[in-house]
Amino acid sequence: MSKILAGVLRANGEYAKSFGEKAQLALPPARQFAILTCMDARIDPAKLAGLSEGDAHVIRNAGGRASDDAIRSLVISYKLLGTREWFVIHHSNRVHGVQSRRHALTSPSLQAADALCEPTILGKKPVVAKGELVLFAR
Amino acid sequence: MSKILAGVLRANGEYAKSFGEKAQLALPPARQFAILTCMDARIDPAKLAGLSEGDAHVIRNAGGRASDDAIRSLVISYKLLGTREWFVIHHSNRVHGVQSRRHALTSPSLQAADALCEPTILGKKPVVAKGELVLFAR
Repeated sequence: MSKILAGVLRANGEYAKSFGEKAQLALPPARQFAILTCMDARIDPAKLAGLSEGDAHVIRNAGGRASDDAIRSLVISYKLLGTREWFVIHHSNRVHGVQSRRHALTSPSLQAADALCEPTILGKKPVVAKGELVLFAR
Repeated sequence: MSKILAGVLRANGEYAKSFGEKAQLALPPARQFAILTCMDARIDPAKLAGLSEGDAHVIRNAGGRASDDAIRSLVISYKLLGTREWFVIHHSNRVHGVQSRRHALTSPSLQAADALCEPTILGKKPVVAKGELVLFAR
């Protein structure tokens, strides 16, 4: 077993001890929203958005792109699991070279999310083109 | 502004106050690993695996599938950002009807991740077919 795996399992063991009644949480997100954001290691969506377990769906990929797979996930989130708002949270600049921790947040419709879809792996275009734009606190 | 958005922004403002030196974290994940898991609201990957900001990439979609987009993300994680282990963390049963909080964890190679790819939206087949299988503590 690798050192990394051992560390993950140790942490999980500790977490499981205090999981308690959270095992009974319902499948549909209690706060009825979803977040699409980047896989960036420096982003903790739960802390960033004030989420507890059971609150909201979180979808992440390289760049926080509204890819076909992300849209598939959002459709499931909306149609099957009752979310009513989606937030697409991006870095304020591209994934590489990010220094600022400012984030842009949009609340797009399905059509807007679709319009955000990018075929590039690491696009350099501004990715927040639709929806309500909000700059986070830092 | 919706009530949900206001709540997210309020939480983010509080989080930002204590962000401090984390704004200087390097882009490559410090612990050199990535997690692929489900968007399920009840999963908090940071708590589940003991992650701090900057530790590891987290990729999430509906079902924690090794989709083309997830593999794109893992390739970027590996080739450009230096991760050396990947953990595919699934529910022990399918996304719908999950009651248990047990998770299965695999550490697949790129080829194994590719083999896990499923074309279905909500597959019912066991999704952990390759790699090292570990049952989490609950």
